[in-house]
Amino acid sequence: MTYCVAIVLEEGLVLAADSRTNAGLDQVSTYSKMHRCKTNPDRSLVVLSAGNLATSQGVVERLERDIQAGSEFNVNNINYLSGIADYLGDVLAERIKRFPNNQHSGMSLEASLILAGQIQGEPAQAFLIYPQGNHITTSQETPYLQIGESKYGKPVLDRFLTGQTSLANAATCALISMDSTMQSNASVGPPVELLIYACDSQTLNNHHRFDDGHSYLQTIRKQWSEHLNNAFAKMPTLDTIT
Amino acid sequence: MTYCVAIVLEEGLVLAADSRTNAGLDQVSTYSKMHRCKTNPDRSLVVLSAGNLATSQGVVERLERDIQAGSEFNVNNINYLSGIADYLGDVLAERIKRFPNNQHSGMSLEASLILAGQIQGEPAQAFLIYPQGNHITTSQETPYLQIGESKYGKPVLDRFLTGQTSLANAATCALISMDSTMQSNASVGPPVELLIYACDSQTLNNHHRFDDGHSYLQTIRKQWSEHLNNAFAKMPTLDTIT
Repeated sequence: MTYCVAIVLEEGLVLAADSRTNAGLDQVSTYSKMHRCKTNPDRSLVVLSAGNLATSQGVVERLERDIQAGSEFNVNNINYLSGIADYLGDVLAERIKRFPNNQHSGMSLEASLILAGQIQGEPAQAFLIYPQGNHITTSQETPYLQIGESKYGKPVLDRFLTGQTSLANAATCALISMDSTMQSNASVGPPVELLIYACDSQTLNNHHRFDDGHSYLQTIRKQWSEHLNNAFAKMPTLDTIT
Repeated sequence: MTYCVAIVLEEGLVLAADSRTNAGLDQVSTYSKMHRCKTNPDRSLVVLSAGNLATSQGVVERLERDIQAGSEFNVNNINYLSGIADYLGDVLAERIKRFPNNQHSGMSLEASLILAGQIQGEPAQAFLIYPQGNHITTSQETPYLQIGESKYGKPVLDRFLTGQTSLANAATCALISMDSTMQSNASVGPPVELLIYACDSQTLNNHHRFDDGHSYLQTIRKQWSEHLNNAFAKMPTLDTIT
């Protein structure tokens, strides 16, 4: 399984992804699910992926080959992020269709993607691209997108995020959301990748990779747990109220 | 959808259930999903249900009819809670098989149950009964069972509950878990039913029903939200650490 989240803020973007993949319980590996595209300097693009690894690797490879070949459609010559999402959706849906599913194996070749980034002169945006190839974006009320094992980490995002949240606070929130998910689902695991993109900076260098023992990840986990335990201890019980 | 949780503690049992059912978005109703069985005084039994309403109503009706008829197997003449879980599992699986699923409608007639209670001289216990009729119980490390929309409310249970938690604190925890679920899933909704059973008391009278506007439910929601926001504000950001 996988958990990826993309947060769209007035100040920029915060992206987080775990790195655990599994094809059965005895085939657990580590793969990055955050791909920073090698584009022209007028744009910064990141692709997050969840689902079948063969499918998502196939999509990323095609994306990079189309850049190198200067294909008619590639991420450098499309002028809008939603257009790039259309292109990626077509590549994704085509890749899934190429290998007819073996219905009896219970295996799914489906994958979902998040495209996040900015083209110069346009706002920073993110799109969730479904296996069918269509996509949705964020709103002022729901400034984030999730793919993979999304439920455990959702309450935290709903509680703390607005479009006005600072990049630093949104990064903390993304890591708490990731930590809650890792605690509840054994198939989501470190290293955790985090990327912070400030609007109009056109650089993807503010990128972090936290191994399980990384001090910041441990600090987040420990302090959040302590704060919650303190908060729970202060909650009124039914007999004190009624 | 539905969310029900049963917590097994040294002091007794805490059970909570929402009351919203929906068959499509324009057919939303309120039904109790917590059934207190009318048994002999040597036992206290509660059935929580999630899934198809026709199926779970059918199971409860059969359970009560078997008591009235003094059937060979009924909840009054089985001597162990796990035996009653077997009986309920048989009734449930039979009820589901009786109506061959219409595969094309996308409808499922499946339901899951939680049986919780105590037979005099035995410990208080809870069992989760699957649509197939088999069941699992709790452990020292995982002192709770959930049915229905379980993921949003699970992190809170994992964080605060042990077998030694007090009944009052477990009740608060169950309501926080229920509130997190109601915030994230529109198909889980009030009134919320809460039942607290003290070991060996053989009474199911400590039962509460909280409408959306109930002051305790509102207090829980408001204070938990405030505590979490305070906790989040105290969390260290990445730039302050690295």
